[in-house]
Amino acid sequence: MSLLTIAVDTMGGDLGPSAVVEGAFRAAKEFAEVKLLLVGHEEMLAQEMKKQGAHKNISILHAPTVITPSEVPTTAIREKKDSSIVVGLRAVKEGTASAFVSAGSTGALLTGATVIIGRKQGIERPALGTLLPTAKGFVLLLDSGANMDCKPSYLAQFGQMGAEYMEKVMGIKNPRVGLINVGAEEEKGNAAAKEAFPLLAASGVNFAGNIEGREVPMGAVDVAVCDGFTGNIVLKYTEGFAKTMLGMIKEELLASTITKIGAALAKPAFARLKKRFDYREVGGAPFLGLKSLVVKAHGSSDALAFKNAIRQCVIFSD
Amino acid sequence: MSLLTIAVDTMGGDLGPSAVVEGAFRAAKEFAEVKLLLVGHEEMLAQEMKKQGAHKNISILHAPTVITPSEVPTTAIREKKDSSIVVGLRAVKEGTASAFVSAGSTGALLTGATVIIGRKQGIERPALGTLLPTAKGFVLLLDSGANMDCKPSYLAQFGQMGAEYMEKVMGIKNPRVGLINVGAEEEKGNAAAKEAFPLLAASGVNFAGNIEGREVPMGAVDVAVCDGFTGNIVLKYTEGFAKTMLGMIKEELLASTITKIGAALAKPAFARLKKRFDYREVGGAPFLGLKSLVVKAHGSSDALAFKNAIRQCVIFSD
Repeated sequence: MSLLTIAVDTMGGDLGPSAVVEGAFRAAKEFAEVKLLLVGHEEMLAQEMKKQGAHKNISILHAPTVITPSEVPTTAIREKKDSSIVVGLRAVKEGTASAFVSAGSTGALLTGATVIIGRKQGIERPALGTLLPTAKGFVLLLDSGANMDCKPSYLAQFGQMGAEYMEKVMGIKNPRVGLINVGAEEEKGNAAAKEAFPLLAASGVNFAGNIEGREVPMGAVDVAVCDGFTGNIVLKYTEGFAKTMLGMIKEELLASTITKIGAALAKPAFARLKKRFDYREVGGAPFLGLKSLVVKAHGSSDALAFKNAIRQCVIFSD
Repeated sequence: MSLLTIAVDTMGGDLGPSAVVEGAFRAAKEFAEVKLLLVGHEEMLAQEMKKQGAHKNISILHAPTVITPSEVPTTAIREKKDSSIVVGLRAVKEGTASAFVSAGSTGALLTGATVIIGRKQGIERPALGTLLPTAKGFVLLLDSGANMDCKPSYLAQFGQMGAEYMEKVMGIKNPRVGLINVGAEEEKGNAAAKEAFPLLAASGVNFAGNIEGREVPMGAVDVAVCDGFTGNIVLKYTEGFAKTMLGMIKEELLASTITKIGAALAKPAFARLKKRFDYREVGGAPFLGLKSLVVKAHGSSDALAFKNAIRQCVIFSD
């Protein structure tokens, strides 16, 4: 049996290389059929690996520099040939690895992946997907930020890419694809959504038609398609809303002794809730529509999140 | 002192005319300087008013028909001249009333208001505003659904209309206006947002620049500007997300006896939280940029919500 090789950027995460290396070791232990290429500074990585003890399926790919989020993506990709993102993407391009995981600069990763790995045939624009918990399971929201103004054909392709991912990685048969819109009727929406409707209907996916914003978190579909401007704003708005709401819940719970006691007793329920919304269980956002899979891990990913980002690649490449 | 007259559509709400009439009577008692014109079927309204007892500042404006949400707005407005929406808007147009409140078909109300009352000078497109609770107070999100594809100039005008409203109705001095976008930098976003940035910066409002989605519910600005496609989706998504999250909280709280007891004790805190998110305290969404104010009340408005929708008109017209 030939091993599946996954390149892992050790330089981008907020917690530093040790979290990434720990995650890689956990993944290597869990997935016997996987080889991992740790991309980063050789000496530093050799030291980190010593802490974990050697593993026959883990090796180092030297990349001495890093692209920071403040750098202009196109320039950085062109000029920093020895950065962990460029070296990792090149390994995929050249066939040394089949997939790449990185918690580094989103802009540089998306630009670099498109330029270096290249688009899949028939795909005009790759898109970033985000797996979100719903009342019924998970929904893949895409595009969640890679493409601002989207042609109708891009939106239709997002539906196809998303359906393929949900089928392969999440094991959902014939996933339902919805077009996020302001109303259910075909003639609703902005110009791009109106034109995307018939394209999605004819694309061969299991098209559920237009879905309103509220239906997405309620689990009406498995894939929710929108442009990256709307997707990014919806995701970040929800994040801020959840924070605000939890802050208000806390404030009200602390306002009286009785409710304070109630809150103390209810704590385990909130801990379970937190786990359901824990992004580390998913591990990262797949960048779809490329010749190979690239997973953008959350900046604050820990070892568990990195392990699960690697798991996504394992399942997708199966 | 001359009285301020406000026309109130009694036909659109889900709870029927009695809730509207009750709300109107409450408003008439609270605001001595206000005259209310109840728009709807004369005989039916005469009966409803009997239940409340007469009030010298409340009278009836006969409108025997209703426009339902399933009718095509433009056609309905043109053909149903005797509908409560058309009769109410005409009263404003002709100067019999200074503002109009309706819980009827959103599409018909927005189309009718634009056609019959007309736009304010310098405003290309009126926009629907939604007042939302934040960690720090309220934010007016506009456009929240009236205009799908927006030119940059529309967005800049939304900022001005929103600032005027927050200053007049919410009493906020020099309100901060933000442009909802995917990043803080001026060059971020879709084409419309990129071009709207310099227009807003030059428009004379207190422009806070681009704001990311998460900053809106956290209270970073008083007015959050976006196109109506994004605004509608964000609002409805948040609604579905809150519902899903509360459902999950409930599920987890009921999962063990201890957390069940905790939940029972914490109940008053959740009741207070519910009040903070109660749309009835706001009463309706202002439709801004017209020669007069039109307020879209929520379909499920009760007497309290209608009273507060009327209050918005009172404060705005002061």
